[in-house]
Amino acid sequence: MDNKHGGNIHEVRRMQGSMEIIDFSANINPLGISEKCKKAIIDSIDDLIHYPDPDYFDLKQAIGAYHEIGQNRIVLGNGAIDCIFQIAEFMNVEEALILAPTFIEYERAFLRNGTKVKRHNLSLDRGFKLDADAFIEELTDSVGAAVICNPNNPTGQVVPSEDMMRIMEHCKSKGIYLVIDEAFMEFIDDEEANSMIHRLEDFDNLIILRSLTKFFAIPGLRLGYFLTSNQDILDEALRYRIPWTINTIAANLAVEALKDGEYISEARECIKKEREWLYSQLSEIDGLSVFEPTANYIFFKVEKLMDLKGMMLKEGIMIRHCANYYNLDESYYRVAVKERSQNEKLSEVLKRMMK
Amino acid sequence: MDNKHGGNIHEVRRMQGSMEIIDFSANINPLGISEKCKKAIIDSIDDLIHYPDPDYFDLKQAIGAYHEIGQNRIVLGNGAIDCIFQIAEFMNVEEALILAPTFIEYERAFLRNGTKVKRHNLSLDRGFKLDADAFIEELTDSVGAAVICNPNNPTGQVVPSEDMMRIMEHCKSKGIYLVIDEAFMEFIDDEEANSMIHRLEDFDNLIILRSLTKFFAIPGLRLGYFLTSNQDILDEALRYRIPWTINTIAANLAVEALKDGEYISEARECIKKEREWLYSQLSEIDGLSVFEPTANYIFFKVEKLMDLKGMMLKEGIMIRHCANYYNLDESYYRVAVKERSQNEKLSEVLKRMMK
Repeated sequence: MDNKHGGNIHEVRRMQGSMEIIDFSANINPLGISEKCKKAIIDSIDDLIHYPDPDYFDLKQAIGAYHEIGQNRIVLGNGAIDCIFQIAEFMNVEEALILAPTFIEYERAFLRNGTKVKRHNLSLDRGFKLDADAFIEELTDSVGAAVICNPNNPTGQVVPSEDMMRIMEHCKSKGIYLVIDEAFMEFIDDEEANSMIHRLEDFDNLIILRSLTKFFAIPGLRLGYFLTSNQDILDEALRYRIPWTINTIAANLAVEALKDGEYISEARECIKKEREWLYSQLSEIDGLSVFEPTANYIFFKVEKLMDLKGMMLKEGIMIRHCANYYNLDESYYRVAVKERSQNEKLSEVLKRMMK
Repeated sequence: MDNKHGGNIHEVRRMQGSMEIIDFSANINPLGISEKCKKAIIDSIDDLIHYPDPDYFDLKQAIGAYHEIGQNRIVLGNGAIDCIFQIAEFMNVEEALILAPTFIEYERAFLRNGTKVKRHNLSLDRGFKLDADAFIEELTDSVGAAVICNPNNPTGQVVPSEDMMRIMEHCKSKGIYLVIDEAFMEFIDDEEANSMIHRLEDFDNLIILRSLTKFFAIPGLRLGYFLTSNQDILDEALRYRIPWTINTIAANLAVEALKDGEYISEARECIKKEREWLYSQLSEIDGLSVFEPTANYIFFKVEKLMDLKGMMLKEGIMIRHCANYYNLDESYYRVAVKERSQNEKLSEVLKRMMK
């Protein structure tokens, strides 16, 4: 598992002992957990002797209000990955088209369900930006579902909304499910123009995935959800739902987090500023090709092969080596955008390593 | 969902408003969350900005030490129910034999996996005790798996270990998986003589389910696991595991809880004393047939049909109506064993209602 994802700081700590490690391998909001959320955790302790609310009434109300959608459009999961496995199972299609590279768990989820996986290779020539026409061309008759991570992970590329609309229309006309993974959508500058949540009711082939753990800095707590107006998927989700999948602390915390406008706007500003700063610093480094970032992580390629991950780790910095993504090789890496002092350290060490 | 399980105190609170409710419908340790566990929760807050350890190294070490088994025999789940769904999927048999009545989620899990379900009816004449010979007779060629909850839920009946051994031997010889659900095993008087965990290595057809949430009073946090020496199941679990299914707070808390011998023995003593007291009280009530309890809940039948659940709720007491279990009817109920003052209240109100 450790080489499949970023963020296994636990294993690194077991191996490195007492050395202090800064984790740039997991894309978590650098502001950390808000005081309001910490209070919600402590206030939840006395609730833990009860099972969670099986209807998650307050949580669904909070998510519905946050996105201005009906609560009956929301399906909850124990983290976004649990949602991905649910989606693959409930769609239950013969073949699915996914991007390469993209988030690794889609392929695993489809294979677990017996769904064939077809990969649409993004090209370095286009900076890993999606070519909508080429993507549409691959939606052949056997393809029952397509998945687009927007922004994509690990590349950070966003699909322009006019391209996304064309893909949505095409999928709808052909009866193909379109899953848009918006797990990092909250981090980009123009969320409103790029999220397709407001189109849910017009496209009943659409499934939109969201995560709360990244933006609210609670990956340890697990909470994700997907949104759809597709009645078949909603019925399957109801029929097969496993009770109490969201723990009470995550559910209570999310209610507080989603109405904390102050934290949300502060986090967006901070990430925008730090993303721009870190991008400008990394772009200056000879031997690195840095792709323009949009969210809270930066994707780059080294010109000469080297054990950059290992070299950085010796300096107390974990980065994400992207060699295990399809259509990428040993030369690709991803780093999170963190707070200034940490970004300075990353930039300084990376400059030194690349000399 | 609300009528499928006990414990939906949230819905009751939404309907009943400010009235204080004592929840006898969910079988949770009345001692509540220990101080050590509360401390573990608060100490975990700063860890939540990281993903959980995907290997759950410390948690598996703690569970392994607690049961004196190898860590490679442990598969974790987001609550025992998540384990049940995993087990049904990984065994992937044509037909499964379950008890009636028994815990409801087995049937749902098998049906979700496309496995046919055959029910072995327990009889009122035998006090819902399992007849091992009759059970073995129903293990026909199409049956690939059998499930026994021990103690059974909601009846509280324990299968004597010599009967269980005979069933285990028979299943082994026929190549049938045997799932023993020991979710309430910690609550019974002679756990050591009745748990089959020490036989895991001799029976590679055996899968034993455990839950931490009931005994340690943390159903809101979600944590269960199953144990097996069956390499096929272990391989499937590894291949299909969804990363980070256990939240960090549950994982950290369990490590502390499992080594808290003082709490464990105090809880056992308290439950034994209260179970015996409450059983003797309920047994005195005319119009109730009370089945001898073994764990932290008591199962009974009313002679005359009445809306006992509704009547008790008006008095601020939630009990579990068992009408939605197969092979039970409107006349069956289950109540948890709680602390003395609450048990007194239950007993007093029940006596009044039955007059």
